[in-house]
Amino acid sequence: MRPIITLLTDFGSSDAYVGTMKGVILSICPQAQLVDLTHAIEPQNVRQAAYVLLTAFRHFPPQTIFLVVVDPGVGTEREPIAVQTNYGIYVAPNNGVLSYLIPHIQVEHVVILQNADYRLPGVSATFHGRDIFAPAAAHLANSVPITEFGPAVPEFYQLNSPVLEIGESQIRGEVLHVDHFGNIITSIGHLIWAAPGLLELNPQFGTSSPEPLTLNAALSQVTVASKVLQGILPTYGAMPPGSLLALVGSSGQLEIGINQGNAAQVLGVTTGDAILLDFETTLLES
Amino acid sequence: MRPIITLLTDFGSSDAYVGTMKGVILSICPQAQLVDLTHAIEPQNVRQAAYVLLTAFRHFPPQTIFLVVVDPGVGTEREPIAVQTNYGIYVAPNNGVLSYLIPHIQVEHVVILQNADYRLPGVSATFHGRDIFAPAAAHLANSVPITEFGPAVPEFYQLNSPVLEIGESQIRGEVLHVDHFGNIITSIGHLIWAAPGLLELNPQFGTSSPEPLTLNAALSQVTVASKVLQGILPTYGAMPPGSLLALVGSSGQLEIGINQGNAAQVLGVTTGDAILLDFETTLLES
Amino acid sequence: MRPIITLLTDFGSSDAYVGTMKGVILSICPQAQLVDLTHAIEPQNVRQAAYVLLTAFRHFPPQTIFLVVVDPGVGTEREPIAVQTNYGIYVAPNNGVLSYLIPHIQVEHVVILQNADYRLPGVSATFHGRDIFAPAAAHLANSVPITEFGPAVPEFYQLNSPVLEIGESQIRGEVLHVDHFGNIITSIGHLIWAAPGLLELNPQFGTSSPEPLTLNAALSQVTVASKVLQGILPTYGAMPPGSLLALVGSSGQLEIGINQGNAAQVLGVTTGDAILLDFETTLLES
Repeated sequence: MRPIITLLTDFGSSDAYVGTMKGVILSICPQAQLVDLTHAIEPQNVRQAAYVLLTAFRHFPPQTIFLVVVDPGVGTEREPIAVQTNYGIYVAPNNGVLSYLIPHIQVEHVVILQNADYRLPGVSATFHGRDIFAPAAAHLANSVPITEFGPAVPEFYQLNSPVLEIGESQIRGEVLHVDHFGNIITSIGHLIWAAPGLLELNPQFGTSSPEPLTLNAALSQVTVASKVLQGILPTYGAMPPGSLLALVGSSGQLEIGINQGNAAQVLGVTTGDAILLDFETTLLES
Repeated sequence: MRPIITLLTDFGSSDAYVGTMKGVILSICPQAQLVDLTHAIEPQNVRQAAYVLLTAFRHFPPQTIFLVVVDPGVGTEREPIAVQTNYGIYVAPNNGVLSYLIPHIQVEHVVILQNADYRLPGVSATFHGRDIFAPAAAHLANSVPITEFGPAVPEFYQLNSPVLEIGESQIRGEVLHVDHFGNIITSIGHLIWAAPGLLELNPQFGTSSPEPLTLNAALSQVTVASKVLQGILPTYGAMPPGSLLALVGSSGQLEIGINQGNAAQVLGVTTGDAILLDFETTLLES
Repeated sequence: MRPIITLLTDFGSSDAYVGTMKGVILSICPQAQLVDLTHAIEPQNVRQAAYVLLTAFRHFPPQTIFLVVVDPGVGTEREPIAVQTNYGIYVAPNNGVLSYLIPHIQVEHVVILQNADYRLPGVSATFHGRDIFAPAAAHLANSVPITEFGPAVPEFYQLNSPVLEIGESQIRGEVLHVDHFGNIITSIGHLIWAAPGLLELNPQFGTSSPEPLTLNAALSQVTVASKVLQGILPTYGAMPPGSLLALVGSSGQLEIGINQGNAAQVLGVTTGDAILLDFETTLLES
């Protein structure tokens, strides 16, 4: 079986940076199967990468190696790490880029990528993707045990969780990501249609109320950028082209979109903006 | 032999949507060889995708599986289908995205992707690329017979053909595509140089005159966006850099370009604009 | 072992041009492992492609086949060539795109891609990437001897070297490339930290002084776009976010960047602009 290595970076596609990392990987592990997640993470946007990784990882086989290089601190003292879990091995800087993912998997080992045998000779100050991370991923794909790479990490860096606050009749979240279509993806989720008109909310971010909550979709009101939407609909096609609507997106997050249009552009919404879900009934007795 | 699956979508490359589809495919068919056609189809532009697919498919082996997800109607009643032909298997929504291609191949089976065994569990309302189309392509690559996926499709959706009208001394077409270089690719074709100065037109779109037609390239006049060009030249290099010229493009379509420049920008031309080919002699007696 | 073929073009990713080349390659050599270097070379910018190729090739295995199609002269008399070396086989137009690389490897054979057996039938005037270059790369990957492809090339086209002039107390270079992050990469290099504060310059471009030169990094002054920077620092993290700094980039070239910012945009610098390194002491006695 060919080992899969996915690549997720902010390197863009106008240089050969990603191609060079692939050359390094294939020089060490020629049978690797390489898959790009995206290289268009906004430069240095660790939170965006953390979110994109969270949405994608479950759709790969559990033995996949996920190489994540969004690394504002390259060349400073943040450590390069590898994390072995019950679902994937992750190679990344210890800067929080894995922290949205971690609550959803079981971590078995976290090590610092310190062993010079598994780095390129002459590590540069600016391109650890090529010199440290890519070789580590390739050696892991060659079944080198993770404990060979270096000592355990003393402290595992965590980003603040995205906002997700559940009040008496209101849920407050934030915009996590604006996608290629201009769809606005929020921290309110994971949502599942429990029955027609009834949503079950299983909070995957935030600290309050880890319990699932049942919400009446029809009686909700969604507010984003002072724009108020009535209810959460089952699909984009439920409204005519051009209509603004709230729905459950493909990762289970509450999503605001325009059927065949660009919602983020029309509403002027960007990552980090607040989103409110108001209900006519109290939530907390459920 | 590793089965080839190509991917053609309007998903862009700034999210992990395409990467996620690849994860789904490799989870089901680890030996698949994945090839991106493009993911930069204008959002929801079914006609552009239909054209791009037409230009590319013949350059792949005939047993290739072509996964095409440009799907404005995701989540509504348009059916997801698979089409087995004498040249490729196609997995796409039944929205016309295959209709430019169909006249050029022999269709053997068209089925609705209905069998839940070949979908991901819990199909989302918004990402059928991941939940229905990618698993279908992967199972087809695993040699699951197409008839296992669901019942035959009652009605095969067709787009209107691009404009291609042949008059007494005029051929009228439309702009099909503007490429990365700003070259303007039209519906006038397929063209072959029969002899120096003589073109043979084998209409691949339109209804009038299915017969090949011989055209005198030197005596033709090409009009696009009120700009008139004299004659059809053999190559970009035939004129100095910066010159506007008409030539036979790499897919056999009449193409307007600027040697080392961007013709679409200079002329302000866009998809759907008219293009006229006028001749000094009558065409119809040929 | 699967043969690796890398692809470097100015074709962009909005058409299926690159995908089509991959289809051609896989039709001839199904076991090829395809790796994109980049397809975002500025249209027809042969020098940029030459630089990108130089930075990447060493990170691939030595038997890699490098397919390079940046070809302003497509369809004219410039010859398509293949070059066998001690480090890689290169398939490209004979327009200088290999000339930055050539001084760093040993050329064994250079042939014109003339043999029709190794081209697609009916070569187009505008898409030699598909019709000549891709099939050649695939047949080379199938171990067809290079001498089968055509006669030796009489004249190997060379670009002018990038500017790199070493004066008594000044080094003058030019901007080679602006990367995705806005980092400004110059012709001054290859640089190695010989000791803290001491750089060794091993000129890889230019004609003057092929000898390594030792430079005092701390006593240098870097001028670009009338902006003066003091010294060359070891890493981006050495200064607070937003600071402009000069450092040794990942390919060993002097690089100007802003920690977590876009230097090229802030300074208004573009490819070909001059960059000066002034020293308080004379360079030439070293």
